[in-house]
This record gives sequence, structure tokens and C-alpha cells, in this order.
Amino acid sequence: MKLMLVGYGNVGKAFRKLLHEKKVKELENVKIAGIVTTRGLMLKDQEAFVPDKKINALEALDEVQPDVVVDMASANYKTGEPSLSLYLTALKRGIHVITTNKAPLALKYKEIINTAISHGSKIFFQATVMSGTPSINLYRILPAMKVRKIRGILNGTTNYILTRMSQGLSFNEALKEAQELGYAERDPTLDINGFDAAGKITILSNVYFSRGISINEVKFEGIGNIEIGDALKRGNKIKLIAYADENETYVKPMEITKEDFLYNVDGVNNALEIESDIQKITIVGPGAGPLNAAYGAFSDLILLLRGENLPGL
Amino acid sequence: MKLMLVGYGNVGKAFRKLLHEKKVKELENVKIAGIVTTRGLMLKDQEAFVPDKKINALEALDEVQPDVVVDMASANYKTGEPSLSLYLTALKRGIHVITTNKAPLALKYKEIINTAISHGSKIFFQATVMSGTPSINLYRILPAMKVRKIRGILNGTTNYILTRMSQGLSFNEALKEAQELGYAERDPTLDINGFDAAGKITILSNVYFSRGISINEVKFEGIGNIEIGDALKRGNKIKLIAYADENETYVKPMEITKEDFLYNVDGVNNALEIESDIQKITIVGPGAGPLNAAYGAFSDLILLLRGENLPGL
Repeated sequence: MKLMLVGYGNVGKAFRKLLHEKKVKELENVKIAGIVTTRGLMLKDQEAFVPDKKINALEALDEVQPDVVVDMASANYKTGEPSLSLYLTALKRGIHVITTNKAPLALKYKEIINTAISHGSKIFFQATVMSGTPSINLYRILPAMKVRKIRGILNGTTNYILTRMSQGLSFNEALKEAQELGYAERDPTLDINGFDAAGKITILSNVYFSRGISINEVKFEGIGNIEIGDALKRGNKIKLIAYADENETYVKPMEITKEDFLYNVDGVNNALEIESDIQKITIVGPGAGPLNAAYGAFSDLILLLRGENLPGL
Repeated sequence: MKLMLVGYGNVGKAFRKLLHEKKVKELENVKIAGIVTTRGLMLKDQEAFVPDKKINALEALDEVQPDVVVDMASANYKTGEPSLSLYLTALKRGIHVITTNKAPLALKYKEIINTAISHGSKIFFQATVMSGTPSINLYRILPAMKVRKIRGILNGTTNYILTRMSQGLSFNEALKEAQELGYAERDPTLDINGFDAAGKITILSNVYFSRGISINEVKFEGIGNIEIGDALKRGNKIKLIAYADENETYVKPMEITKEDFLYNVDGVNNALEIESDIQKITIVGPGAGPLNAAYGAFSDLILLLRGENLPGL
């Protein structure tokens, strides 16, 4: 079983480390046959990246002939490329895809899944939502539920900022601190304006409600001009809530009371609440971090090797 | 695929209903071939129980020749019988077992699992801990974690009583209310004294740490003489906490601060926190109820039909 890794930043390195350190019977015949970055393709499995060929991921697919592509490259929300074409090409050839990159799925979910189904290949993407905390994979162990609605805190950056604001910091102070701690990027626009959370709830809507929607159909609002003083006075908090049911999907800041379970989900923690015909359950855990994202992809790989199906099928 | 149901109270009835109402492709060739209670064996699949033969579950095994036994009978913590012998006999014959009854597993986990392994049969038991909220099955989607410790609120009755006490009721008032609402049994001893939670953390210790222990090795303390006034004055709550790591397993009432995620787990909700080398995650959901327990067994059945392994293997 040959893997080709795409992207080799902190997540890619952490994934490679998990693969070498975790002694799991499923991994016995698994090896990294190639690592691709924008600098080219390396055909060795070594920690230091030294490209052997100056080719791109799509060309590397021919060269490496992997069984599974693991995409840990950064997201391009305009077009989903080059990952989108890579997935479609791989899936058409019967190559499975595991990804931590939510852009292609947030943009073209239906096309990607249908390509996988019609070619008997699989795409697993736990790490695109809540990183290594099971959000998508949770669905696998909750069969035949009739899901009524899902609701969550899906962006760690904004939750950290809102948490620190509720402790007295201004928006700018909280953002600066989040950047210093590595919780926010230099350009935090897509976190702050709700776009990142919108991408995640788009994917969850597609898994939990088979809606087949794209992020372009999702209304989102961020926390750029947020005022939390009045909520605080009422003993409440503001949280950036992502919501979906069978008919609608949105992201917006909402006032959350003490009695609400999401009230206590602070800092970079994320949470997802699933309300079904059976029960309401909530899962909470870190929503970001290189090791966490790598573990999301790693757990997908193990489930793939165990013969699991596409999530939601 | 022939099922034999053991026990036909509220849980058994809810399970039968799920089986008939949920249209899942895995269930296409599944049918109920027999239902056994203390009153005998019914060979029809109908809602009203009318025994055809006055025989017990072990004798019914010969009569029905099922592929899967689903035990939803009530627990006997003294010996685990008659369920324990039923499981061992069934597993030795290659018959799979799904159970909501924690007594046999809390008493004889190692013997049961080893019997299953050596005969190539399976025993699934999600509903024994947190009912339909994935606690044991959660482990399936978190492969290769190095679990450091687990901690939870695993008994709904005591959590309800403690919640109502923190709202001003006396222990006796809260217990009476819990009984009126059906959250506590007429004889609530095994809930109140921590024994029920001890049985559950025993099972989780065996799944998450492969400890191979019995409930008799677990220290437990209940809430019978609980005083919560001082904790309340400090802005804290008392919760009945079940804890396990590689070396110890216990149940005792503990003071929980506002910052602790378990602080907000109130009423009949249960929660499980899992701390591993990767991350700390928490799952929260109802810990009891006929439909919930039935769904725990139902989800086990679907996972079994999908070819899943024993949990923890």
C-alpha cells in the first residue's frame, strides 16, 4: 500500500511521524512512496525534504502510482485548485484520497463524492472539521439516526478571541494574542469573517443531511465588529455558531446562556452538537493544531485500511 | 441472519421497533427468530409477548439457533447469571452477542472477551456505558491513541439528584423527584452507592486500557451521605466522578469547578472525557432511557453487520 503525501508543512511532518511511531497492525504494509510540495516530488521517505524531480502533484501521481493520496496542503478557496483536480483525477483512477484541506470539499462536494462513488474509490476527510476530534467520523458510529439539526463552534481562532474578550480584552488585543500564540494566522480574514466556519458547516451539512451544497450557498457573518458588552452584562457569552438542518445552513455570532452546553466551550476548543430522533449528543475537543490535524488524517487512514465506507454512506 | 432477543421490557420493545422502522441496507436479511423472557420463548416476531415454549434462554439457544443474541435483560451483579452462561455458550458456538446488560462484563470481562476471541465470535456492548451515547464505540474511530486517563459522569440517577440538590432540594426530595420521573428505581441502592458507575468504569478500563479487571477490584463511594453546601458556597458543584488510568480505577464524589467541562453536565446527562497523547476530547449525552439503550444495541448490530471487530481490538 503506497501513500503519496501532498504538502509537507507542520501537518505533513506530524503525519509522517505518526505513521512511523504508531505500531498498528493495519499499517504493516503501508509505506510513503512520495512526498510532493510546491518545490517538487521527493521519492524517498525521509524527514528532510529534498526534491528529486521538479514536478507538480498531478504529474507526481503518474510517477508515484500511489494507492492513497494524503492531501495536507493549504487551502485555496477561490477554485479549490490544484487539490480539486488532483482528487478528481486520483478518484477516477481508483486511488483513494484522504484530506485535511477543506476548500475542494466546501466548493465541490457533490462532484467529488459522486466521482468517488462511480469509480469505487473513497475520500475521507475527518480533519477538515474539528481536526482530530471526531466530527465527520462520529457519524460512522451513529448509524440510521434521523438527524434533526447540528450546531457547533467550529473555528478555534474566533472562539479564542471571543473567550479572551469575555475576559476583558479588546478585539485587537485578543487577536494580537491569538497571533502571538499561533492560534491566528498573519492574515486572519477567513477566520474572523466566518468563512472558515462556513466551509466546515458546509461539509457537515453534506455529510449529516446529504444536502449536496457548496459554501457559496451558505450565509455567514463573522466577529469583525462584534460588541459583547451587553451579552456579558446579562451573564451570557457571544459565540460564533455554525448551524445546519435539512433546510438551512449558516454561521453567525449568537448570544449563548450559561445553561447552554456551548457556553463552556472556550479557547481553541471546538464543539459539535447533534440532535437526532434518538438523542442529543455533544462532542468537544481541540479544533486545530498540526498534531491534531495529522491525527485526523491518520485515523482516516486506519479506518480506510479497515475497509470503512465513505462517511455518510 | 437470525436474532434472538433476551428480555422484552421497555428496552427490548424499543429495540424491536427500531429494527422494524429503520430502513438500513445492512438490515435487509435480518430477522427476529425468537424472543426469550423469564416466561419462556416466543418464536414469532410480534409486539405482544405470547410464549410458545416454557424454556429458558440457554435452552432457547438450541431451539432458535440464532446468529446473534441480543441481551436486554436486567442485571444480576452477584453472579452475572443467567446472562454470563448464555454469553459463554453462545460465543463458543460462534454466535455473536450484543448486550445492554453490564453485569457479566463488569464481573468477568477477561473470560468473556477471551472466549469470543478464541472462537472467532464477537461481543459488542456499547449500551452498557452511556446507553446510546458512544462511549465504547467512540474508541473505534480513535485508533492508535495512547490513552492517559479517562474521567466521566456515568450514572444519570446520581447526577440528577446532585443537580437538583445544587438547586436547593434536599437529598431525599431530589431522590423522590427522580423516582417520580422514572430516573431512579424503587430500590436505588446500586445507583446511589456508586456501584452502577463502578461497573461502567470497570468496562471502560478494560476497553481503553486493556486492564482485564473486575468490578470487585474497583473502589467506589456513593452520594448517600453527601454534603454539598460548602462546595456550593465556593461556586462549585459536587459530581460523582468515575476515573481510570493504567493503574487505578475508582468512583467517588468530587468537587468540580466552573472551569471544568463536567461542571455543566447536569440532570440525567452523562459525559466521558478521554485524554490521550494526541488530545483531550469529551462526549456528552443522555446516559439512560429505553430508546437510548435500544439504540446502543441497534448501533452495535449495524456495526457488527458492517464487519467491525471487537471494541478495543
